[in-house]
Amino acid sequence: VAPYRPVRSAAELRTALGELGMPAILKTADFGYDGKGQTRIDDIQQADAAWHSLGRPVGVLEAFVPFTQEISVICARGVDGDVRAYGPVANVHARHILDTTTAPANVSPAVARLAHELSRAITESLDVVGLLAVEMFVVGDKIVVNELAPRPHNSGHYTFDACVTSQFEQQLRAVCGLPLGDVELLRPAAMANLLGDLWQNGEPHWPAALALPDVKLHLYGKAEPRPGRKMGHLTALATSAEEARRVVVAARAALTDPLSLR
Amino acid sequence: VAPYRPVRSAAELRTALGELGMPAILKTADFGYDGKGQTRIDDIQQADAAWHSLGRPVGVLEAFVPFTQEISVICARGVDGDVRAYGPVANVHARHILDTTTAPANVSPAVARLAHELSRAITESLDVVGLLAVEMFVVGDKIVVNELAPRPHNSGHYTFDACVTSQFEQQLRAVCGLPLGDVELLRPAAMANLLGDLWQNGEPHWPAALALPDVKLHLYGKAEPRPGRKMGHLTALATSAEEARRVVVAARAALTDPLSLR
Repeated sequence: VAPYRPVRSAAELRTALGELGMPAILKTADFGYDGKGQTRIDDIQQADAAWHSLGRPVGVLEAFVPFTQEISVICARGVDGDVRAYGPVANVHARHILDTTTAPANVSPAVARLAHELSRAITESLDVVGLLAVEMFVVGDKIVVNELAPRPHNSGHYTFDACVTSQFEQQLRAVCGLPLGDVELLRPAAMANLLGDLWQNGEPHWPAALALPDVKLHLYGKAEPRPGRKMGHLTALATSAEEARRVVVAARAALTDPLSLR
Repeated sequence: VAPYRPVRSAAELRTALGELGMPAILKTADFGYDGKGQTRIDDIQQADAAWHSLGRPVGVLEAFVPFTQEISVICARGVDGDVRAYGPVANVHARHILDTTTAPANVSPAVARLAHELSRAITESLDVVGLLAVEMFVVGDKIVVNELAPRPHNSGHYTFDACVTSQFEQQLRAVCGLPLGDVELLRPAAMANLLGDLWQNGEPHWPAALALPDVKLHLYGKAEPRPGRKMGHLTALATSAEEARRVVVAARAALTDPLSLR
């Protein structure tokens, strides 16, 4: 993981900033997700305000990681200890929320192998039965683990359309004591989240995106499309991961600008 | 279609048998499915009994077709007239009920093209919006249309696991006026139906079949596993259609004989 210090006061935070350097990220020690409970500190003058905005008795200061890419691996582990891993896939965040996932990630075989080994080791050492999503930063030829999520994960939604066994089926197989299914990627794929913001000017124009025949629409049935709320996602299959990402991003743009695909 | 005669009495049936020859199949003109309402007549002596067993005022006598293979194509047609076709796939029946489907069917390019052209022409001439399953007999290099089903069809269940767009999604896209999705087969596949008979000695042994990692289980949630009742199906993906069929049949056998895969 990145260098870090637990902090329990504004004074401890200032000491930690001195030790880790800046920029650094102050994070809540519990219930953080989608960047909630995180503050970036670039200058020691921001320390007190950051501490008070945390509003909790304990936080974690993390050194800023100058990553070149964010990737994730989702490990499934059965009752019998069998482990199968999806990915690594490449994740791009916008406003701290996952924006797109591209499968497979464009990383070297060595980085892919390291990501698998790390994820598997973590899954086994935590004795997980079910899924464990491992988010990682790629820093050159090294990997820094960023976040663990013991459940089906947004960066694995593409598996529903693109893999022999989806992460959702895999989770059920694992916790039901059934054999795990094949995690093979049938075709390069990319996923784009649909946030409530897309509803700003009314219902998105679904036919425009679905006019691309290898684009799949998933809506979660949430009633109120609030800004920043994950309402669904699109997946595109293509002959390359880059092409899949290009298509899925174009399909999403067409939802609010139907003529953009013409 | 095969040579046929409508028949409204035992006398008409005898006349028709003389014209079409034997063996021939007497079929109900309505509500027939899974071989229900069908009687094979091999000898003129069976005519009266066959007529009375029909128990309806009108039937259809069909000449027996000495087919080498049964195939089907499922056409999807949108509100805008766009047509996309799955298949042809090869179907094997047991006791008049679909037993296995293998995708793609092992037919010549010419037969595959003919099957597509015929199915498309039928779909367009009936002005179908939605799905039309077209079952056909292959007789040498000719095709005889056997049955039409204007809906998602048992021989298209494999599309859920093996195609970019499943027949179920395609039906929704069509009737909702959305663009049709890609029908491409991502990988050769085979489907085996699970009839209630498999429950004869208690719940089938699901883990045995799922130990084959490219086998997918679908259960329809029906409460009572009566003999002959379709309770679910298995799909297998593989590198060839023949291999997929071998795997799915082995997986089904393992449900009642778990040691058969060892």
